[in-house]
Amino acid sequence: MNLRTSVATVCLSGTLEQKLHACAEAGFDGVELFEPDLVASPASPEEIAALAERLGLTLDLYQPFRDAEGVDEDAFHDVLHRARAKFRLMQRLGIGTMLVCSNVATASRDDDQVSATQLRRLGDLAAEHGIRLAYEALAWGRFVDDYRRAWRIVEIADHPAVGVCLDSFHILSRGHDPAAIEDIPGDRIFFLQLADAPALTMDVLSWSRHYRLFPGEGAFDLATFVGHVLGAGYTGPLSLEIFNDTFRQTDVLRTAQQAKRSLTWLEDQVAGRGTGAAAALPAVTQPSGFDFVEVKGEDTGEVDVMLRQLGFTFRGQHRSKPVRLWTQGGARVVCNEHLARDQEPTLAAVGVEVADPGASAKRARLLEAPPVFRRARANEQDLAAFRAPDGTEIFLSQAAPGDTAWVPEFEGGDPPSDALVTGVDHVNLAHPWQTFDEAVLFYTSVLALRAASSQDVAAPTGLVRSHVVRSDDGGVRLALNVAPLALDRTGGFPQHMAFSSPDVMAVARAARDRGLRPLPIPRNYYDDLAARFALDQALVEEMAELGVLYDRDADGDFLHFYTETVGDVFFEVVQRNGGYDGYGAPNAPVRLAAQHLREAGRPGAGR
Amino acid sequence: MNLRTSVATVCLSGTLEQKLHACAEAGFDGVELFEPDLVASPASPEEIAALAERLGLTLDLYQPFRDAEGVDEDAFHDVLHRARAKFRLMQRLGIGTMLVCSNVATASRDDDQVSATQLRRLGDLAAEHGIRLAYEALAWGRFVDDYRRAWRIVEIADHPAVGVCLDSFHILSRGHDPAAIEDIPGDRIFFLQLADAPALTMDVLSWSRHYRLFPGEGAFDLATFVGHVLGAGYTGPLSLEIFNDTFRQTDVLRTAQQAKRSLTWLEDQVAGRGTGAAAALPAVTQPSGFDFVEVKGEDTGEVDVMLRQLGFTFRGQHRSKPVRLWTQGGARVVCNEHLARDQEPTLAAVGVEVADPGASAKRARLLEAPPVFRRARANEQDLAAFRAPDGTEIFLSQAAPGDTAWVPEFEGGDPPSDALVTGVDHVNLAHPWQTFDEAVLFYTSVLALRAASSQDVAAPTGLVRSHVVRSDDGGVRLALNVAPLALDRTGGFPQHMAFSSPDVMAVARAARDRGLRPLPIPRNYYDDLAARFALDQALVEEMAELGVLYDRDADGDFLHFYTETVGDVFFEVVQRNGGYDGYGAPNAPVRLAAQHLREAGRPGAGR
Repeated sequence: MNLRTSVATVCLSGTLEQKLHACAEAGFDGVELFEPDLVASPASPEEIAALAERLGLTLDLYQPFRDAEGVDEDAFHDVLHRARAKFRLMQRLGIGTMLVCSNVATASRDDDQVSATQLRRLGDLAAEHGIRLAYEALAWGRFVDDYRRAWRIVEIADHPAVGVCLDSFHILSRGHDPAAIEDIPGDRIFFLQLADAPALTMDVLSWSRHYRLFPGEGAFDLATFVGHVLGAGYTGPLSLEIFNDTFRQTDVLRTAQQAKRSLTWLEDQVAGRGTGAAAALPAVTQPSGFDFVEVKGEDTGEVDVMLRQLGFTFRGQHRSKPVRLWTQGGARVVCNEHLARDQEPTLAAVGVEVADPGASAKRARLLEAPPVFRRARANEQDLAAFRAPDGTEIFLSQAAPGDTAWVPEFEGGDPPSDALVTGVDHVNLAHPWQTFDEAVLFYTSVLALRAASSQDVAAPTGLVRSHVVRSDDGGVRLALNVAPLALDRTGGFPQHMAFSSPDVMAVARAARDRGLRPLPIPRNYYDDLAARFALDQALVEEMAELGVLYDRDADGDFLHFYTETVGDVFFEVVQRNGGYDGYGAPNAPVRLAAQHLREAGRPGAGR
Repeated sequence: MNLRTSVATVCLSGTLEQKLHACAEAGFDGVELFEPDLVASPASPEEIAALAERLGLTLDLYQPFRDAEGVDEDAFHDVLHRARAKFRLMQRLGIGTMLVCSNVATASRDDDQVSATQLRRLGDLAAEHGIRLAYEALAWGRFVDDYRRAWRIVEIADHPAVGVCLDSFHILSRGHDPAAIEDIPGDRIFFLQLADAPALTMDVLSWSRHYRLFPGEGAFDLATFVGHVLGAGYTGPLSLEIFNDTFRQTDVLRTAQQAKRSLTWLEDQVAGRGTGAAAALPAVTQPSGFDFVEVKGEDTGEVDVMLRQLGFTFRGQHRSKPVRLWTQGGARVVCNEHLARDQEPTLAAVGVEVADPGASAKRARLLEAPPVFRRARANEQDLAAFRAPDGTEIFLSQAAPGDTAWVPEFEGGDPPSDALVTGVDHVNLAHPWQTFDEAVLFYTSVLALRAASSQDVAAPTGLVRSHVVRSDDGGVRLALNVAPLALDRTGGFPQHMAFSSPDVMAVARAARDRGLRPLPIPRNYYDDLAARFALDQALVEEMAELGVLYDRDADGDFLHFYTETVGDVFFEVVQRNGGYDGYGAPNAPVRLAAQHLREAGRPGAGR
């Protein structure tokens, strides 16, 4: 689209100077200068202007100027005094546009003519200083809380230095139809602020101040919104204004990069809506399935034992690295002891199969997913890989029937045999709270996965927030789990992969015969199961014996069991019957309680 | 009131056994057994019943039984199947009452007669098992969401085993008038659940599931509510049912004790409403002022220097301990190097003056405030002291004009001289997020302070949540500050005391003459000040020179300045003019940014 990109300094943590450096490094063209950031800075306006210039950043907007219109003449006198000082300041900063918010606190005149006249007078003063005013309807403005009314007032004001600022949050949070944006001449839209937000039901002020998200991380249809703004003929910057409690306290550069990724994604989405704009990214289809899952640790021997008990076949040792491959049906697990000194077994990498690995890799690169390098010899497959926000490595491989191309690199193992497990159903990743929203955007933008259900699950140590990103056909499902804070700070929240099978009871029985000890499930659970579902009592008893859990919804039912945890990893085997599309969420508290008890009983517990 | 006390196991973290132990140790008479806690427990129902009996706890309620009424006959058949299994389970547990929630998910018949008939049939089955049903209107029930309708249905059901359960959250969150509770015969109120909650505007389900608080920690008028229930003739337990994300993950015993404190406080409040019930606690008036503030550290020398620069007089060394006293006007600061090896200077104790220290100490003891013991010699004042939830020690002393009785224990100092500082205005304490709600209840219940304003303040590292508890006349004001999580986990968030003065400019000037370097405030701040307020430019320049900040509201204005931070402590001097009753909140981000810059420049920063 060739629109400039900008971001408000309020989105980021740190000092104003740190924010400017981060915005430049992330590749933004400019910034909105949030007044409190300047007020709290020891740097003079001239220093800030010079720093921005050296960094190649334009200062696109000075914001916010509050409570400017709809006031009595006495109060307006004070407004003019305040505005004059700010216009002079803006001249020192070299900023040409000021954000004027609709009045929240001091408005006493609910009259478009009064507001328009005052904006016109303010416009005269602004014009004397070479400044333009972008008037914005706040969602909680005292009288003006709708962009259509703000535009009407600007129309009446009829001053070349007075236009509107559009903010997606203020418009979409109120459910206002953005289509009427196209009725505004593009050159009267002086600024565009973009923010996404999760679908929450709360007062709009709290929602706005604490929960805004970068585009693609929330529930707003920003592509359509931007389409209307471009349709109106707007040519100014796409600028992000995100008030978010997490971004305010996490690494400034990382957040700036996340912000930039969100705009790259959004530009691509807008291009996809047939605006005639060129796509920013190579188009990719969703991954068709999991290629492999990797467990990494200094000693993965216990994992090897467990995989054999689950019916996996040892397919050999990698010819150049201390890495072993286990497969069963379409499920491939790599146990990697390379460069893992002092490391407990952990879920380190996930490979996904895509139609065009080259296009996917390029898309990832353009979205600034950090690349992972692994040494590959001449005769070895060199898969592109990226690091997800939680540190998990994501590998891209060519979708193909049967084993993928890298499997022959493993030597000295057994041939595949009959399998009760058919593939990997889903992978559960523990996720730090600091980068959770970033992760959702990462998976949806880089891999074109879809953010699906979100759920709170009660553990003995607090609520676990679980959010699924998946492909539409269910070939790839990732559950991102945020541990309770009190637990999070002690570290250690296990991750797991779930294998799919058409007969979980058979897998469980065979595994038990091979010595597997499943995660013990309380008898009380089975009594509750019998009360809730009209299940055959013999089946319930067999499930109890094998540690198999059960769930049912309107579309089908679900059987699954868990292994014990080794290091920070455990396994699950699941069976989906009918159209069951969930993950056994009602059973998750039982699993978490059982793991809590096992953990408490382990040597080294309470680390 | 001699009512029994109970608490739902869902309020607490840990395993079911851990919860029972904690409830018993905290002094509860019984518990509500939350079904998922039992389902996830490896202990059999008989074991749980036996453990509760050994611990002296009654199992007062089995809960919840969902989606029981308002359904089609087919669905009701499944309800009866489920109920029969649960009634048998309750017999094994020895629980006589089950909570039946109004239907949320499966209700298809919006008809009191249908619901009543189904409750009556369920009541027949319950009665066969010796069980009673307490029917409760959930605030988000599909059809039944008002306790008055739940009671109407119970009246129609007209079955001795069917009564109502009243839950303060479901009633008060919807704004329903609790007065009609008195229309319900007391013996038909089978159970009473109590929960407080903060005043939030959000969907009631999220509010209920994540934000409930113990009585006294939120905004509900529970004393009046309980008054109505007792007025109806209810004689069952006062039981707490609190769903709260924090309590779910923090120490189980500590939360149970907090829960018990909240009920003790509530019983006392109810008695105070003229119900004729005996007060649970000795009545106390609010503290009249600060007695002293103590800074503790291995070497408090830098604090000594700063106090002298601020105009404080060295009053001597304590005759038996390495403790020094500084005073100015009514402000007393104790510098304590006793038992402080390797400790940076920190704000360790706050003394408050009360009318009757004996009564206050007894009240604190009955509210289970943990006592603090300090060795006192025969001729020394022995002040009662308690530890606040954040670890700060709170001392109680006899209110008296002039210096308090312990001052003569300090020897070898100078006599008090003319003072520009008159006393302590407020004390700011850093507070961990885990015990924030507990702290609010602690200060309001133990010291009879009032929870006042709450505010989010932007720091370069995130939002600081600041909540003030105070006496009505402003003699004691404590600001509790919760640091952003990312900062919290690195530890270290400074605390401070603010001294009051009728002439802050004079204090600042005199301090500067004595060598004090105030916290540097950016020039940009003063330019903004000049834009916002019509202040005399010479005054602004003088404030800029002295690092004095300014705020104004409709009632008056406020001048203040800060010292640099020593260890984890700094000082503020404030001047309130007119009726200004705030704390200069608009200036707090400027202060936090300045401290952030100083901290970043200190040796050892980033620890």
